[in-house]
Amino acid sequence: MFSVGCEDDATRARAGVLETRHGKVRTPCFMPVATRGFVKTLSAEELERIKAEAIISNALLLYMKPGAEVIAEAGGIHRFMSFEGTIFTDSGGFQVLRREFSPRFTRHGIAFRSPFDGSRHVLTPELCIALQETLGSDVAVQLDDCPPYGAEGERYRESVRRTLEWAEASLQAKTREDLLLFGVVQGGTDPELRRLCTRRLAEMGFDGYCLGGLSVGEPREVMMEMVELSVSMLPESMPRYLMGVGSPVEVLEAVARGVDVFDSAFPTRNARHGAVYTWHGKYSITKARNLHIHEPLEPGCTCPACRRYSRAYISHLMRCNEPLGKRLVSLHNLHFMQELMRRARDAISRGEFNEYLSRVREIFRR
Amino acid sequence: MFSVGCEDDATRARAGVLETRHGKVRTPCFMPVATRGFVKTLSAEELERIKAEAIISNALLLYMKPGAEVIAEAGGIHRFMSFEGTIFTDSGGFQVLRREFSPRFTRHGIAFRSPFDGSRHVLTPELCIALQETLGSDVAVQLDDCPPYGAEGERYRESVRRTLEWAEASLQAKTREDLLLFGVVQGGTDPELRRLCTRRLAEMGFDGYCLGGLSVGEPREVMMEMVELSVSMLPESMPRYLMGVGSPVEVLEAVARGVDVFDSAFPTRNARHGAVYTWHGKYSITKARNLHIHEPLEPGCTCPACRRYSRAYISHLMRCNEPLGKRLVSLHNLHFMQELMRRARDAISRGEFNEYLSRVREIFRR
Repeated sequence: MFSVGCEDDATRARAGVLETRHGKVRTPCFMPVATRGFVKTLSAEELERIKAEAIISNALLLYMKPGAEVIAEAGGIHRFMSFEGTIFTDSGGFQVLRREFSPRFTRHGIAFRSPFDGSRHVLTPELCIALQETLGSDVAVQLDDCPPYGAEGERYRESVRRTLEWAEASLQAKTREDLLLFGVVQGGTDPELRRLCTRRLAEMGFDGYCLGGLSVGEPREVMMEMVELSVSMLPESMPRYLMGVGSPVEVLEAVARGVDVFDSAFPTRNARHGAVYTWHGKYSITKARNLHIHEPLEPGCTCPACRRYSRAYISHLMRCNEPLGKRLVSLHNLHFMQELMRRARDAISRGEFNEYLSRVREIFRR
Repeated sequence: MFSVGCEDDATRARAGVLETRHGKVRTPCFMPVATRGFVKTLSAEELERIKAEAIISNALLLYMKPGAEVIAEAGGIHRFMSFEGTIFTDSGGFQVLRREFSPRFTRHGIAFRSPFDGSRHVLTPELCIALQETLGSDVAVQLDDCPPYGAEGERYRESVRRTLEWAEASLQAKTREDLLLFGVVQGGTDPELRRLCTRRLAEMGFDGYCLGGLSVGEPREVMMEMVELSVSMLPESMPRYLMGVGSPVEVLEAVARGVDVFDSAFPTRNARHGAVYTWHGKYSITKARNLHIHEPLEPGCTCPACRRYSRAYISHLMRCNEPLGKRLVSLHNLHFMQELMRRARDAISRGEFNEYLSRVREIFRR
């Protein structure tokens, strides 16, 4: 289901194809985030228009709202959302440990209270898999234990122990043949723990490996060290997914280190706050001077926003706090991310990834 | 520029075509409201998809934000919004008399303070026309004086005197040949004042006539009486536009009395609050039972929302307060209004408008 097509000469970057029940995903790939069953402000048509081959939703959040039975009734998450590309689902392990869920570890999982209605639940690795199977996910992620950044050493050891235990349980719980299951590497910023966790997960034999517990506050260099360390121990033939990353430069830095898959709410959250990504850097569309620029957000861009609307108009919309403005900038930024990845795949196939990375680093330094 | 194609036998309803610089508008017609240069939550593509032939914006609000010079620079309101259908502009007389503008009548117009930045301005009939010409409007509306509902008799007499004075000034101020200019009938609910205002405006010779100062709180029957009274005195060959109306039944009741053009934020405001219009009446999409209905908002409907998404999904979006939900219901309701008017034109051409009106009245009684 995963094949590496070509590798860059000077870096660990590689281009490949991940095949799921819902088609091919060319890697390296960036997934828009549809946590609650929608990418904020965007329709399924619009995801098609920007050629998003894969998106990621969240099993736990869908379980709480609208409920797994609603999505099962609809015929699965693809039918529910009307999106026919690949859908990853995260387990929700990351969310459930936030304070608003009042989480508590039990022998078998995590007890929590729904912040929506106060109801009590226990999330176990088995429930997480059953849930993702019910939702009709293409790629499931095991339940993991992701401590907050800066926790004590013992907490990270506990997290790795628990994550590995839940990894085993997840593999055993899986019943659907066509569901891909990814394990999650934890271990904070402790190289020893990361090595241990990576080695054990690789032995268990997952369909792919998430690098978890990163991009949570640690310095970028430390994050990249942890990525390198895990990638060096993971099987070459399996996809690697760095969760929650992120910015154009960080994504490409991780591609250079052998990562294949990314997701982040960053480009769309940025968009809703008016930050526009371009091949000349970022700018803020809300500034009044944009009202006098009667050109696309980025001249030459082929995204649905740039094909039809001007910077002036979109600036006016944003200054009026109109959802259409947020939608158009979100479309543009996600199109930019898709284009960033397409160019990355091209650069890899030409063996020029380092040059490409330098150019993008230069663009976003300003 | 306006031609009546056919008239109903039993009512005063008529079907016609209004031609503007930007094409044909089949009447009776309902205009979505784009007060600040956008129909809330919708893109210009989407206005095209629901076949909106005309929309209405607001000269005063565009003057304050983003400023008339921005829209002139862009090449006019059509280019600015990227909407190539007919654009009416209201003068803003209605808005400027609201308390937040601190309005005060001067000899030549209305002095006010911008609620956006506190700046002071004077709106005159001449400025209003110049503004609408600068914006590149297809159909302009004269500055009028619309008192709040329930004002004293003297206030209504003053309003008619002022509106008529401003009507003359507007006609004289107009320079653009291809701009249609509509006068506005005021007079509150006083038949004598309405008659006076209608007669005098008709004598002045506008390109069309707005029925203003209605749907501001008076009983529906009183509004309809005022409509009948004005329509009976207006030239048959000119379009009549009932401003700010409204609900499907009110619109058709006024069509039966000879009105051709309507606008209202009602269907989209309703949509944003979850009220879905259908040929079986209205319902609230936010109710949890909708989560289990895996069918379109209205089975058989051809709007962009119904073609692709389910009631369950849209209900989920609305319950998450997601803008995409508001967008999809807005699309559906505006499509419904377009279809309501299309069926009205059909019924008129078959001489069966009364039967049609009764059916729609029945549907929305429940």
